[in-house]
Amino acid sequence: IRRSALPNLANLLKKTHPADIAHLFRYLDINEQRTLFHLIDDSDVAAEVLSEIEHSSSAQLLAQIDKDTIVEVLQAMPYDDSVDIIQNMPEELAEEILSSMHDDESEEIEQLMLYREDSAGGIMSTEFFCLNQDLSVQQAIAALQEAEDAEMVFYVYVVDDERHLIGVLSLRQLLTVPPQRLLRDIVDTEGLISVRVDTDQEEVAQLVAKYNILAIPVVDDQNHLLGIVTVDDVIDVMRQEATEDFYKMAGASEEELLYGFKSFKIARLRLPWLITNLFGGVITGYLMWLFRMTLEQIIALVSFVPVITGMGGNVGGQSATIVVRGFATGRIDFSTLRKVFFKELRVGIIMGLVCGLVVGLVAVLWHGNIYLGLVVAVAMATAMTVAATTGVLAPTFFKRIGVDPAIASSPFVQTANDITGILIYFSTATLFLDKLSS
Amino acid sequence: IRRSALPNLANLLKKTHPADIAHLFRYLDINEQRTLFHLIDDSDVAAEVLSEIEHSSSAQLLAQIDKDTIVEVLQAMPYDDSVDIIQNMPEELAEEILSSMHDDESEEIEQLMLYREDSAGGIMSTEFFCLNQDLSVQQAIAALQEAEDAEMVFYVYVVDDERHLIGVLSLRQLLTVPPQRLLRDIVDTEGLISVRVDTDQEEVAQLVAKYNILAIPVVDDQNHLLGIVTVDDVIDVMRQEATEDFYKMAGASEEELLYGFKSFKIARLRLPWLITNLFGGVITGYLMWLFRMTLEQIIALVSFVPVITGMGGNVGGQSATIVVRGFATGRIDFSTLRKVFFKELRVGIIMGLVCGLVVGLVAVLWHGNIYLGLVVAVAMATAMTVAATTGVLAPTFFKRIGVDPAIASSPFVQTANDITGILIYFSTATLFLDKLSS
Repeated sequence: IRRSALPNLANLLKKTHPADIAHLFRYLDINEQRTLFHLIDDSDVAAEVLSEIEHSSSAQLLAQIDKDTIVEVLQAMPYDDSVDIIQNMPEELAEEILSSMHDDESEEIEQLMLYREDSAGGIMSTEFFCLNQDLSVQQAIAALQEAEDAEMVFYVYVVDDERHLIGVLSLRQLLTVPPQRLLRDIVDTEGLISVRVDTDQEEVAQLVAKYNILAIPVVDDQNHLLGIVTVDDVIDVMRQEATEDFYKMAGASEEELLYGFKSFKIARLRLPWLITNLFGGVITGYLMWLFRMTLEQIIALVSFVPVITGMGGNVGGQSATIVVRGFATGRIDFSTLRKVFFKELRVGIIMGLVCGLVVGLVAVLWHGNIYLGLVVAVAMATAMTVAATTGVLAPTFFKRIGVDPAIASSPFVQTANDITGILIYFSTATLFLDKLSS
Repeated sequence: IRRSALPNLANLLKKTHPADIAHLFRYLDINEQRTLFHLIDDSDVAAEVLSEIEHSSSAQLLAQIDKDTIVEVLQAMPYDDSVDIIQNMPEELAEEILSSMHDDESEEIEQLMLYREDSAGGIMSTEFFCLNQDLSVQQAIAALQEAEDAEMVFYVYVVDDERHLIGVLSLRQLLTVPPQRLLRDIVDTEGLISVRVDTDQEEVAQLVAKYNILAIPVVDDQNHLLGIVTVDDVIDVMRQEATEDFYKMAGASEEELLYGFKSFKIARLRLPWLITNLFGGVITGYLMWLFRMTLEQIIALVSFVPVITGMGGNVGGQSATIVVRGFATGRIDFSTLRKVFFKELRVGIIMGLVCGLVVGLVAVLWHGNIYLGLVVAVAMATAMTVAATTGVLAPTFFKRIGVDPAIASSPFVQTANDITGILIYFSTATLFLDKLSS
């Protein structure tokens, strides 16, 4: 960015959507980011930009900016976003910032920081629009016209004198009833859907998706209205949860997104899973070593080791993926699991037979030994069938004992399948040893 | 379901949210489904239930229900949902149904069926609320109060006399301006975000998520307003696209969700990918066979084959997952790819060194041969580094040539890593052959 172009740039920024400005930050180094950020003179826009930037970059950026600007920008954004940003700061900076904010604002933020980050309380917005049930429709519309800051107004939450949630009205409903009626008489209390403040964010997202609503109210134990989770936050949650599952299934952690390009930290996150798999691989190797007498006699057996372990891993991975994703989307639960298990078993048998036949034929044609073909085919078919069932059972087991199936299934399924595949293959081969060597 | 309980059940259904009724269908067999469906006497509710049921079940269910009921229910639901359901019917039934509908409705549906299912046109709703720019705010509110069927009214789309899209107003904006002003004077035309009818649904979802909007207007080449995509459809799209990517990365296809528990059809979908991997495995085995002289002399080498191929696959899978997911969420694009490549390379080297050290130590302790330890360690470190780079390059290559990186990367990465792993391992071993056998 050249210095002379700065005024033009500032004008350009005024016409650019904050989300686009945030996107631009990805391509800039930290100095350019700082320059660009200071060019935004409207603190509302700066707030929106900052809340759209990824947390890993926003923490870096804030370290470069003077404290007063930070406070000003944080006060211009919704509380739930400033909580997110403050939680990602170094602790000292966070405390400093909180103490320079207005008392009521810092109190509200500290209150929100008590909720778990992945609970309804952690993602809810506290600037919503709620009205007392004793107001008339006319008064409600007047109040709506005056309200300034409420986020995404499309529902009006109706409460009683103690702020207990009574019901919800849509703006459109307000417009289509006589202006003199009281809110308490028109509000629909039956179909009211709300979540508790400690509900897991994934469950919140599933409810919003299931009932096609734009926002869900968040209440405490006594049904006091505390906030709302809006559909745009739900979209972020769903995307984040899907990314998390992708990473976990590959033995990575979505935490590494916070580390940007810091290789050592990222490697440290991935290594525990790899080392677990490494020992799984060593155990598989040890089993082959136990069968070395068989192997020494029929060296041709070695040519099918990669295909037998590999295919077991693939089939197991398919079944595990289907179960893990099924749990995540609510498509599979414990009551439908039996049917899923038998389906995967049948699919595993069919695919095992086909692949066994193919690889058996390859073995006969290649080594000219019909018994080798038989051994390979039987081992392949059995290994794939077993793999399909492990693929269903492992994630189910982990889910049952309260471990995230996405993280636990993959190394377990893979190691289990490698071991059973090798065992089946070499036992069959040892059984037919005299036929093979003739 | 007992016959005597039916009237009670019918009452219960009246109080149940359609989404919950749809959920219930999962646990019922086809006869129970039919009975339950006939108990719903409000065709609006029946329509909502039907559009929430998974397509695989709804097709089955419709085959059990008489044609007149189907037509009635389809006419009670938004066009985009009925299009989805009709597209999943057997062709004959679909034609029969279309010919018994009102002419204008079947025409509209046939028009919508022309758009690709995964384009903006395929998911848009045509029942939206649009007004001419020459109306006053007062007239607009009056029109709004009369409108009945429009889906999720929270934005008013403003068009000119030829139905060109001019801009968007929120309901709240309408309430906060003087009632005499014309829509053309208050509408914001600058920040208008719209998509073309042939835009890919994934891109539509990304725009809605990025700009935090509740609905995005869909226009044709000439900017005529054709429909809107609402945020609840976007949530479905995002979930569907994530599921699709999960399935593809495991070598399965989300198409199998349509087949329910039909094992043969599901096996047929998964087999092509497995067979490709099978031949990859056979090639790896062939390479080992080429090195059989080395192997016969040092049979201990075989004990590290599973761990070398396995770890290469794991590391490659991690890098590939990060790149594929990065492309899908827009976090990675071709301009940031260089940085990602070098990050994964560095991470691969670090993890390769650690794992190489560990497995080398295991080899020394186990077989008491320091040279074997060295060979295994070097091969492991090299194989893992190479695997990390393949994991980035393969999905990038497939993306570049227009193939979905999710489907193409996994078998390719795995086979490539097995082959390079084995080659590196056995070449190193052959090089040090006299040291190893001493």
